[in-house]
Amino acid sequence: MQDFHANNSNTDQLREIHQLAVSLNNMLELQRETLARRGVLLPREIFHGLAHLSNSVKFLVKNSAEQDQELERLYALVDVSKVINSSLDLTTVLNEVMDTIISLTGAERGFLMLSNLQGVLEFRVARNMARGTLEEEEFKISSTIAYRVAEQGEPVLTTNAQEDPRFFSQHSVAIYNLRSILCVPLKVKGLVTGLIYADNRIRSGAFTQRDLHILTAFANQAAVAIENARLFHDLQRSNFELAQAYDVTLEGWARALELRDQETEGHTRRVTELTVRLAREMGYEGEELNHIRRGALLHDIGKMGIPDRILLKPDKLTPEEQELMKKHPVYAYEMLYPIEKLRPALDIPHRHHEKWDGSGYPGGLREKEIPLAARIFAIVDVWDALRSDRPYRASWPSEKVRAHLLSQSGTHFDPRVVSAFLEMDLGELG
Amino acid sequence: MQDFHANNSNTDQLREIHQLAVSLNNMLELQRETLARRGVLLPREIFHGLAHLSNSVKFLVKNSAEQDQELERLYALVDVSKVINSSLDLTTVLNEVMDTIISLTGAERGFLMLSNLQGVLEFRVARNMARGTLEEEEFKISSTIAYRVAEQGEPVLTTNAQEDPRFFSQHSVAIYNLRSILCVPLKVKGLVTGLIYADNRIRSGAFTQRDLHILTAFANQAAVAIENARLFHDLQRSNFELAQAYDVTLEGWARALELRDQETEGHTRRVTELTVRLAREMGYEGEELNHIRRGALLHDIGKMGIPDRILLKPDKLTPEEQELMKKHPVYAYEMLYPIEKLRPALDIPHRHHEKWDGSGYPGGLREKEIPLAARIFAIVDVWDALRSDRPYRASWPSEKVRAHLLSQSGTHFDPRVVSAFLEMDLGELG
Repeated sequence: MQDFHANNSNTDQLREIHQLAVSLNNMLELQRETLARRGVLLPREIFHGLAHLSNSVKFLVKNSAEQDQELERLYALVDVSKVINSSLDLTTVLNEVMDTIISLTGAERGFLMLSNLQGVLEFRVARNMARGTLEEEEFKISSTIAYRVAEQGEPVLTTNAQEDPRFFSQHSVAIYNLRSILCVPLKVKGLVTGLIYADNRIRSGAFTQRDLHILTAFANQAAVAIENARLFHDLQRSNFELAQAYDVTLEGWARALELRDQETEGHTRRVTELTVRLAREMGYEGEELNHIRRGALLHDIGKMGIPDRILLKPDKLTPEEQELMKKHPVYAYEMLYPIEKLRPALDIPHRHHEKWDGSGYPGGLREKEIPLAARIFAIVDVWDALRSDRPYRASWPSEKVRAHLLSQSGTHFDPRVVSAFLEMDLGELG
Repeated sequence: MQDFHANNSNTDQLREIHQLAVSLNNMLELQRETLARRGVLLPREIFHGLAHLSNSVKFLVKNSAEQDQELERLYALVDVSKVINSSLDLTTVLNEVMDTIISLTGAERGFLMLSNLQGVLEFRVARNMARGTLEEEEFKISSTIAYRVAEQGEPVLTTNAQEDPRFFSQHSVAIYNLRSILCVPLKVKGLVTGLIYADNRIRSGAFTQRDLHILTAFANQAAVAIENARLFHDLQRSNFELAQAYDVTLEGWARALELRDQETEGHTRRVTELTVRLAREMGYEGEELNHIRRGALLHDIGKMGIPDRILLKPDKLTPEEQELMKKHPVYAYEMLYPIEKLRPALDIPHRHHEKWDGSGYPGGLREKEIPLAARIFAIVDVWDALRSDRPYRASWPSEKVRAHLLSQSGTHFDPRVVSAFLEMDLGELG
């Protein structure tokens, strides 16, 4: 892009042409005297023409230099617009936009405001304007201008506020020696969504009319980039809230179940947390861990299908009642399978009563036929049950539970998972 | 922007200067002859200088015209980049990008490909290339070039494929008379995410080196805009799926509850649909309707807290049992309140047993103290119960139910809601 651009500049050539025209003029002037001495007069048109040519070219040199700058600014604008669109992170975009304004204009200070949901302008980014400043008298000028720009939707530029009649009424412009002020609205589909303000107290003429045009173009780009980032941000938040709501709802479901089951208070929460920890130790991560967490939360959801008279029976269950009770993993499968999002979380509710040696239920699966998530959960479930007081027995001490798990390694439990579990630091739970 | 630009053009002035230089030269030539007749010779440098000046200016005219075009293209690019970023809808963005390419280059035909999740290029948009064409021999040239551009990440431009040594090996270039071919990669953060191809069979020189530069800049913008739209699209889909999963999960919850309650099959589904219809008739819309739908789905969720011996008792309940049973709306409130997302859906589970005259439970609220959603649901719930067979009675005929609802208008039910309900066309339900 840069090479392309450099090849294209006419300015140096125009300078040379100007030099040439000047020297041609000098040469002719010289000749005029010589010729005059010999009684010959060259037509006036030739001298006028050369002088005019020389002046025109001189003017073009300036114009061409400005056009070069204009091209350069446009290339910069194209690059900048790519940069500000390269992120959908709102904070990143706002900072990129603010820094670009400062560097494009050479401004001393600046700020960016956006309309909030209620349509009220709010400060979002500032450069070299301390929070203190934002409350000072001096700042009132900036904010007056900012609000006017937002209201009228038109940019304001002054190259020397000291001499700009629009600012005569504001004594503070003089007091605070503000010289160059620039403020452009951010517009999306014709609506003002915010504004960018920049000023310079030292130099007058820091901003030119060309700056205003480039900055208006930039503000248009920036407004769109900011709007996109905002939309993306809102959608992300809604996504996050929805995901959270989903999990809170599952937890509520689990809690309701726990109440009916008269399971030890907090059993579900504890086994869920511990299962996730153990799964993480064994290499699970990301969304996989989420499935495990949901599966653990819902591990006994199938008990919704077991009548109270069996579920809540204080005495030992009859063989028929036991058979009914053993249906809860199948009920869980039937209940959760239609919910696509929960399908990857099914292993635990469906398979947490399978045993390593194939003696479990409902499938009599053995060893690695049993999904790893279910093998992990089975150990945590038994561990928590034995560590808790139950109506028919007191909780076992930690060492006795550890010994029990070890003794069941290779029969009830996957030996590898038992090892991983026993190596974990259970902290106060242990 | 346009005015700004027009003021800036040097081309016309350069043309005038060129004319001036030419006529000055002519005038001097004329003088040379006159002077020669008088025996005077003007220095050669003057004539050489003027000729050189005239030539230089002539060259600058061409250069300046190109620079004007360049500026114009850059302004167009800035505008276009705003347009393609103005939407986060993927289809809109892809079409905008494709149309821009066609109009910027004056191409005859073109297509746009994007890498899919597996990194394989897929056609996404095409212009003037029929599906038939996409399979023809002719198209193989285009796709060969496209794949090469994608692989090497560098653009390809030929102003006359017939004479371009890169295409000598491809007989089909000659056969199909392809002349101008342009293909630029779409890159995001250095990675090729797709490409844009355009060609022209009729004109050679349709694309210039300048086109390539502008189009590379455009492709950079387009790649970013497409990537943003894609990210947004993915997030939207995930949001939609999550929202659906949420509702499917609630339905699962409701279904599980219905099973235990041995409620008439489909009661929940029916009352939910009908409640939503009636609520819509009464002016509810959007997210409000969703809350109503969720509330109706979960109307009896509090029964999870009622033991089987009461819930499933075939005989009449004792007064104590009735008191326990009447707690289900309170249980629903306690269970759902912690789930923020469901809080706006609470009115129905919590208040659907309140009555217009204040004789309902759990709050004994009267008239408009009862949330409207609950007043609406109460009518639909009774309607569906009476229209269904129950173990202890057959379903009532439609007219009898309507008469019952009317008789309860102003005591059990809100008269306004009864009217609205009876005016509804219940179709085969009625």
